[in-house]
Amino acid sequence: MDTSFICDLPSGPLDFYRRNVKFDWKKLKLVFEEAALLKIKLRVWKTLEKDPLFQKPDEEPTTQEQKRIAALQLQQFRKYKFMPKSSEKASVKDRARYLMTINEALAATYPDVSVKQGIGVFLFQNTLSTLGTERHQHFIEAIWNRQSLSALALTEVAHGSDAKNMKTTATYDKETKEFVINTPDFKAAKCWVGNLGKTCTMVLLFAQLYTGSQCFGLHAFVVPVRDPNTLLPYPGLIIGDIGEKIGLNGIDNGFIMFQNYRIPRQNLLNRTADVTVDGDYESSFSEPGKILGAALENLSAGRVGIMQECSNNLISAVTIAVRYAAVRTQFGSDNGHELPIIEYQLHQWRLFPYVSAAAVLKIFTTSLATDYLNAVEMSNTDTAIENLREMISEIHAIISATKPLVSWTSLHAIQECREACGGHGFLKAARFGDLRNTVDPCVSYEGDNNVLLQQTSNWLLRQWSAVMNHNQTHSPLKTCSFLTNYRSILSTKFIGSSTKHVKTVEFIRQTYEWLITYLLKITHQKQMELMTTQNRFTARNHSQVYKATVLSKAYGEYVTLKYYWKCIYDQNLERDLVVVLEALGLLYGLSSLDKHLVYLLQGNYDSGPLVQLVKDAILDLCEDVKNYAVPVTDALAPSDFVINSVLGKADGKLYDNIQAEFFNNPNAMSRPTWWREIRVDHNADLRMNSKL
Amino acid sequence: MDTSFICDLPSGPLDFYRRNVKFDWKKLKLVFEEAALLKIKLRVWKTLEKDPLFQKPDEEPTTQEQKRIAALQLQQFRKYKFMPKSSEKASVKDRARYLMTINEALAATYPDVSVKQGIGVFLFQNTLSTLGTERHQHFIEAIWNRQSLSALALTEVAHGSDAKNMKTTATYDKETKEFVINTPDFKAAKCWVGNLGKTCTMVLLFAQLYTGSQCFGLHAFVVPVRDPNTLLPYPGLIIGDIGEKIGLNGIDNGFIMFQNYRIPRQNLLNRTADVTVDGDYESSFSEPGKILGAALENLSAGRVGIMQECSNNLISAVTIAVRYAAVRTQFGSDNGHELPIIEYQLHQWRLFPYVSAAAVLKIFTTSLATDYLNAVEMSNTDTAIENLREMISEIHAIISATKPLVSWTSLHAIQECREACGGHGFLKAARFGDLRNTVDPCVSYEGDNNVLLQQTSNWLLRQWSAVMNHNQTHSPLKTCSFLTNYRSILSTKFIGSSTKHVKTVEFIRQTYEWLITYLLKITHQKQMELMTTQNRFTARNHSQVYKATVLSKAYGEYVTLKYYWKCIYDQNLERDLVVVLEALGLLYGLSSLDKHLVYLLQGNYDSGPLVQLVKDAILDLCEDVKNYAVPVTDALAPSDFVINSVLGKADGKLYDNIQAEFFNNPNAMSRPTWWREIRVDHNADLRMNSKL
Repeated sequence: MDTSFICDLPSGPLDFYRRNVKFDWKKLKLVFEEAALLKIKLRVWKTLEKDPLFQKPDEEPTTQEQKRIAALQLQQFRKYKFMPKSSEKASVKDRARYLMTINEALAATYPDVSVKQGIGVFLFQNTLSTLGTERHQHFIEAIWNRQSLSALALTEVAHGSDAKNMKTTATYDKETKEFVINTPDFKAAKCWVGNLGKTCTMVLLFAQLYTGSQCFGLHAFVVPVRDPNTLLPYPGLIIGDIGEKIGLNGIDNGFIMFQNYRIPRQNLLNRTADVTVDGDYESSFSEPGKILGAALENLSAGRVGIMQECSNNLISAVTIAVRYAAVRTQFGSDNGHELPIIEYQLHQWRLFPYVSAAAVLKIFTTSLATDYLNAVEMSNTDTAIENLREMISEIHAIISATKPLVSWTSLHAIQECREACGGHGFLKAARFGDLRNTVDPCVSYEGDNNVLLQQTSNWLLRQWSAVMNHNQTHSPLKTCSFLTNYRSILSTKFIGSSTKHVKTVEFIRQTYEWLITYLLKITHQKQMELMTTQNRFTARNHSQVYKATVLSKAYGEYVTLKYYWKCIYDQNLERDLVVVLEALGLLYGLSSLDKHLVYLLQGNYDSGPLVQLVKDAILDLCEDVKNYAVPVTDALAPSDFVINSVLGKADGKLYDNIQAEFFNNPNAMSRPTWWREIRVDHNADLRMNSKL
Repeated sequence: MDTSFICDLPSGPLDFYRRNVKFDWKKLKLVFEEAALLKIKLRVWKTLEKDPLFQKPDEEPTTQEQKRIAALQLQQFRKYKFMPKSSEKASVKDRARYLMTINEALAATYPDVSVKQGIGVFLFQNTLSTLGTERHQHFIEAIWNRQSLSALALTEVAHGSDAKNMKTTATYDKETKEFVINTPDFKAAKCWVGNLGKTCTMVLLFAQLYTGSQCFGLHAFVVPVRDPNTLLPYPGLIIGDIGEKIGLNGIDNGFIMFQNYRIPRQNLLNRTADVTVDGDYESSFSEPGKILGAALENLSAGRVGIMQECSNNLISAVTIAVRYAAVRTQFGSDNGHELPIIEYQLHQWRLFPYVSAAAVLKIFTTSLATDYLNAVEMSNTDTAIENLREMISEIHAIISATKPLVSWTSLHAIQECREACGGHGFLKAARFGDLRNTVDPCVSYEGDNNVLLQQTSNWLLRQWSAVMNHNQTHSPLKTCSFLTNYRSILSTKFIGSSTKHVKTVEFIRQTYEWLITYLLKITHQKQMELMTTQNRFTARNHSQVYKATVLSKAYGEYVTLKYYWKCIYDQNLERDLVVVLEALGLLYGLSSLDKHLVYLLQGNYDSGPLVQLVKDAILDLCEDVKNYAVPVTDALAPSDFVINSVLGKADGKLYDNIQAEFFNNPNAMSRPTWWREIRVDHNADLRMNSKL
């Protein structure tokens, strides 16, 4: 294993926790990240680090200025050649993988620019190449030539998750052979459209297609919105920027209203359906594989990207907090000798489950991206359509459970890490604020987490019905094929008596399989019971809390672990690496199960020592993980430039770094320019104050 | 009950959920807030709303500009007379209450200004009047005359929670009759000091007092740091601003290093100890009541203020989310008819426990502030010192459990409410970002939450020992006097069989008493067991997770409910109000217990239906609360000016308000000034791009 391209870490106070571990952190790094992909990322990061345009500003710029900088950075980034030379001969899948990796590297450092590129370039190109036809090729070329930038307009002011209910219309006008686009009222204004606020020239619009007086549902159109030469909007449009957000202010999210705005008939993306010159609607399902693939592409690509971004931000957060905890001392048992806070059990328990989550979710998202690209590739080749359809449904179910899991875990980890760094964690230079503001919207966009969870549980409930009716599942990826054994699973009881009985891969797998089966059973029962008096919609709504949502969460955890163990055991890793990776997987599994213990008791999976054993095992594992938490995060972590935190530098020189930060702050020492305005007014009415 | 001074709410889409409730929301408002205090707040808010200096800026100013505005606002605020006329004749306690109320009103709208005033004025005055003597009177006068502004310098770069280990020294020099202050290295620089960055002229410094070569521990000194005429620092000091933070950037937090910096001997606050001209250290415990009172004052005043602020921010968050949920529709069972999202059980379950927490914690913090002021008053009168000492310990234990409870609940609620408003919740104008950034540091400062929890559990464990040894508790406020019945409590089992058996005040009280007793028992056992091989320090550290921390959290929840029920039942309230308040209290109690169910099962409090009954009861109560969630939040909520959210206005005109926000954004429609910089460069190297 060649690790020579990975730089050594600087020596410093962290050495104490880097010594005495049996494994080579660089080899561990290559378990978390494939060498070829890591090399691409390192190239991206080194390039950006040298580019003045990508240096961090001294102080947070105004939101207007953030938009300007992000637009310039996007322009610059698109000029770089990051694809490896070898990629010219690579497969479509590998090239897609390289592109995803480049964007992942960008997202870890400049999330605004990455989103702008993702929406403005990749999403546009993907959608056109799957939903469009030859007649749209020139739009793609204009994007690649940087002559235009795109945006995706789906969400409306009054409708987000419920996409079918969008109100924007595109009505075909036979006379002029155009579509006439209208926004009935402000509630139907497209909004939150990234790049639309200031910079894009085209919009990929989803609108209800009408021809004659008949509505054919949502369709996609390419809509030019700004003159590429002047960047001024065209007449008939009201375009604006939606204003400041909690974070990601470099992205110019906008809104748009259409007033009898006309576009050529050909701007309809017509792979699956078209409107003839005479206004006849024609649907063409001639290539079902491709259409399924398109659906998959459009639904899932963004979510996989979000998961990668969130898992990288999770890594940054735990790296900062672990390095801080290893250097920061506070209190101690003997006078004078202070203990690093990483030595406190409570602190370990607060951080290490998130360290283990970082490891598991990193490996999971990487493996899932591979599965996803495989499915996309299958859709472009000759495959049994039925199997492909099932696989796409399963991937959709997996992503609908794990996008929430990864984004929430990241968000909660960032907050816990912020708190674990105390007041210093509240410094902007610690970076937790920016990480949180970047991850926060990930729980809402590209499918609201709570809505997505329901998609997973619906799929699982369909599998449950298939098991009940035909004793089979439609699970080519085998994430729920165990359900056919539901009778023996439900009759299982925990029979261990020591922590060593719960600190096993097998225990966690079995317990999750029991839990998922149990939750499926009670959720199904609840829905059946409700449906005797209510409709399906209401029955579903009343079986989410404590049932379907928990089911989807448990399934997500189970699946991430399944991918993790497969990745660990499929490689022929050194024993010392396996020991560490096992401890991390077990800690993740048990601390995830810890949240569901009450269901294990309620369902009589155990009436004895299980609860105590799981909790004891978690604390044992935290103690183990403490011994290698620093090198594990070294293996997970990108460079200081990417982590960009005064508290989390690899040299561990915490206080020197804080000192430099304080003293280099450009406004640190100077008297403020406005000092005269606040100087005490000696002639003030003192009587007034004496009363206050 | 005179409610005429409370304005009616504007009519609009929220009327639907305001009709058909049996109670008068204005009367409910006066349960949450005493009329006299509410009137003060309304006066503050009306005044600020009319003052141009307190208008919200169009866009987030730079952090430097935020500091300037906050400094000007502080100056302006201090000129207003908000104390009611009647206060001239009021008791010291009532005057203190009025002052707290004014500051609470300020904190709800301008947290930065409130913190600057709290630290710069009140904390200084309180500390000098309790730890200082006549010789420091002129410092207080200078503050009141607005000739100086203060700061509190305790925290050092390397020490926060562990205050005893601070390294800054103040060494008495007999020759010049001065103290010489030194900062040994950057790790000992005082930091995070509010007002120190740019604006304060004096610092209340805590440093290790040395005379001769002997150290007498931390003492407080008044240290002039800037010339009040020029606002330039004095020689011998390195003062700076620590730079940007996640939030509260109007506060100029600073750092300071002392280099043989000299102050007069008299600047030592000498109520409890003094150094004579000749350098002899003399401690004087002549007024133990006053000293205890001082200790209480200094430890707790800030924490009570934090709890009030957090509970107000919690109220703002749930008000926004409930009003949004009542107006926002999405999906529905029939075609065309969409359901307001407040009707979805999952959404109810996400929000209403926080609505109930807002009600309970609001009443709790108000009642606690009264108890706290009573104790302060007692310390100024003739009281049995022993009882006072016990009461102060108990209040400290209560605050150490509830400051974490209130701040964390508020933080988690804000996040859940942000998510419950979907993408729109991510708008800065929705206000969740600012609320979160304001509450976030509250979990760390004035006592880190995790450290505080340990203080509560230590106190509870001492009570447990007292029960074991003498069958008594030292609990004058009776928050744990039930422990003397521990035998019968621990032998209690749950015997109910229907949700009506758990939807009672009595069930929740009994269950919490069982839970606290059980957790005390197992925590004590664990510590005893550990202490056979380890020292007390290690034993405590290894009995926090799953034991002492849970104990303190459960105790905090129990105490808040105890205060809540007392407040509800001590007043002779109308039946219709009691019905609502009971439902809120039960929902808060059960949803808090929901987090601890596994301990009830583990300790054999129940082996039957309890888990299911609690969960069913929570969902029942959510359905009840849905019927009056809107008027309940109306009763809790301050005016639109204070809530300051485009999503949460009282008129419920959600989409009109969003439209106004989008269109009034000053940079919404215009082409950016930098459009030329990002326009497509047609001469760019197209080959380069085609490879990307």
